[in-house]
This record gives sequence, C-alpha cells and structure tokens, in this order.
Amino acid sequence: MTEAAFEALRAFVAERDWSQFHTPENLAKSISIEAAELLEVFQWGGEVDDAHLREELADVLTYCFLLADKIGADPQQLVLDKLEQTRAKYPADIVRGRSEKYDQL
Amino acid sequence: MTEAAFEALRAFVAERDWSQFHTPENLAKSISIEAAELLEVFQWGGEVDDAHLREELADVLTYCFLLADKIGADPQQLVLDKLEQTRAKYPADIVRGRSEKYDQL
Amino acid sequence: MTEAAFEALRAFVAERDWSQFHTPENLAKSISIEAAELLEVFQWGGEVDDAHLREELADVLTYCFLLADKIGADPQQLVLDKLEQTRAKYPADIVRGRSEKYDQL
Amino acid sequence: MTEAAFEALRAFVAERDWSQFHTPENLAKSISIEAAELLEVFQWGGEVDDAHLREELADVLTYCFLLADKIGADPQQLVLDKLEQTRAKYPADIVRGRSEKYDQL
Repeated sequence: MTEAAFEALRAFVAERDWSQFHTPENLAKSISIEAAELLEVFQWGGEVDDAHLREELADVLTYCFLLADKIGADPQQLVLDKLEQTRAKYPADIVRGRSEKYDQL
Repeated sequence: MTEAAFEALRAFVAERDWSQFHTPENLAKSISIEAAELLEVFQWGGEVDDAHLREELADVLTYCFLLADKIGADPQQLVLDKLEQTRAKYPADIVRGRSEKYDQL
Repeated sequence: MTEAAFEALRAFVAERDWSQFHTPENLAKSISIEAAELLEVFQWGGEVDDAHLREELADVLTYCFLLADKIGADPQQLVLDKLEQTRAKYPADIVRGRSEKYDQL
Repeated sequence: MTEAAFEALRAFVAERDWSQFHTPENLAKSISIEAAELLEVFQWGGEVDDAHLREELADVLTYCFLLADKIGADPQQLVLDKLEQTRAKYPADIVRGRSEKYDQL
C-alpha cells in the first residue's frame, strides 16, 4: 500500500465525515460482514462471477486497510511479520502437503 | 504489495505444498474464519491487546493477498478501483456523517 | 426449546455472573465467531469429524438461544414466522431447483 | 424444536427441490453468511430495529436447524449436552464475572 493510496482512502472517509464510525471494533465487525459477502459468492457451489468476486474481496481489503491505518500499521509489513512467525510454527519439512492445524500435527 | 512480498508468500506456500488446498473457495472460507478471530479480540468489550490485534489482522490480510494473487489481482488496485465505485454510490454531500446503507439513504 | 431448557441456560449464565457480558450486540458477535468455528470444520475439505461438528453447531445454537431469550423470542416461533415470509419471497414453482437469490430470479 | 416444526422446514425445502444444495458444508457457509447479516444490525452502533433483528436471528436459526436435521441431531439436545461440557470447562467459582477464555483463566 503506497502512501498515496492511503491518502485516497483517508480523503474518502474525511469527505463523508465517517471517521466517527470507524472505531477499531466497528472496523473489525465490518471486516467480518464483508468477508461473509465474499463467502456468499461460493455459498451454493456453481459458477463464480469474477467481477463480483473482485468487488467483494476489495470490500474486505478496504476495511482491513482502514483498520491497519487506524492502528498505525502497514498491511504488507503485518503480513511479512506474521509470515516469519508462521514459518516457525509450521516447519516445511513437517507440514508438507498436510492441512492440519499446528496443535494437531 | 510489492512483487517481492508476493514472492515471499508464494515461496512459503510452495515449500509446504499447500497450493493444493488454496482454491478460491477455501481461501474465501479462510478469510471468514480469520475475520472472526479478529472479531474475537472485541467479543466482550474490555481492553484490547495491540499485539494480538495486529496478528489477527495479519491473518485476514494474508488470506486476502493469497486470494488476490490466485485471481491475478493487485490488492491495492482492487481497493482503489472499488473506491471509485463507492464514491458514486455514496456522494459526499448526501451521506456526510450518516452510516445508513445506500438503499436506505 | 422448552422452558426447562431455557431455565438451564439462564442458570448457567447466572451462576457465572455472565449476564453483564450478554448484550444483544455481544451475543451477535459471539454467534459470528462460533459460526466461523463451525465453518472451520470444512475449511480445507477432507473428512469431517462428526463429534466436532456437533459441538461447534451447539455453540452457535447456544448463543442464538441466549439472544432469543434476551429479546423475549421463542427460537422455534422465529423460524416458523420467517418461513412464512420466505415462502412468499421464493414461490416453489419459480425457484424449484434453483439457488439464485430472490433479486436475481 | 417439535417434529411438526421440522416437518414444516423439510416440506419447504422439498417443495423447492433445494435439498441438493443443502450439504453440511453449504449449510455451514450459510450459517456464517446469515450470522454476518445479524452482526450487520450492530455494525455502526446506533439504534437497533427489533423486527430486523428478529428476522436475521431467524435466518441463522433456520440454517442451524436444517444442519441439525441433516446430521440427525435435535437442536435443544445439542445445546444441553454442550452445556454440560462447558460447565466442567468453566467452573462457576473460578470464572464468576470474568470473560476470559478457559485457556487464559
């Protein structure tokens, strides 16, 4: 996420005076709500509409970026930091090709 | 998201042979599951552990980035494209300071 | 849900002094959180552990019953009342064998 | 849930030939999707519309009852059985007035 992209998001929110609604908790609820709309694309199996999928994923990402900005975090850095932790928790030679959770390996 | 960061995610998945599990539908389910773990940070009110919050947000973002990569989309571009649509749907002068959905304005 | 079953739930909550946490909003969050744990049973495909599935469904139902009790509603009556509405929205002769939403029929 | 209520649900599904869509996994996805619509009632704080809340809770319950029926379980019995387990996990004298998870007590 570039600073210019964050600025576009912040301007969008500021123009609408929506910052008052964007507490971390409300943003967390919003991420769950939008994640469910993304899941709805796959609710009954069947064909997936690619444009619809992109829009729903965009909505989840938007609220994630707003929450990251609210707590002063860079989304990409969050992901890379967590990746290091997950590398240690799921060593490649133990989990290769297995989908169990770490406490069931 | 830089190409280097995507490469780090892809290498992590490839080393574990987890690509077989990462269908768009399974990633969408995973986003909902991780979004709920993020919501759990706020389940009963009370104080929020910042490190915990960052980790749970990182998990949602990780699956979002994996899904974006799977469908050949750039996360930041998805957000910016959707922002343009939302600008049209929620004109600033109509929605200022209001949290209603567009169909209830 | 019999009155005796509701009484058992209420006693469980009262013994733990948990009613203070059980606002309608916190219960709604809890339903989403438990629904995601139920979804996790199906996260990567593969075999389903029946006992695990029952436990996770029980957790969703428990919070649903607590919320119903909080708003003075009977779970079964809620379902039957909504069924009447859904019958009108999705007439059998139009939707037979189709999974589209009502606004896409 | 009485047998008559289950029969009404089954008839509704059968008339629409929707049983083909109602795999346990699809029902689990549907429970998460409807749980998020229930959460949406509380998304930004503010007043809650009681009729709307009842409808959304009814939708979650409906899919829970359909899943219970699919796996041959009685919803009320599931809840009461789980309550016994939770009693043991969260002894009243230890958890009174506390909202921590059992692994953080």
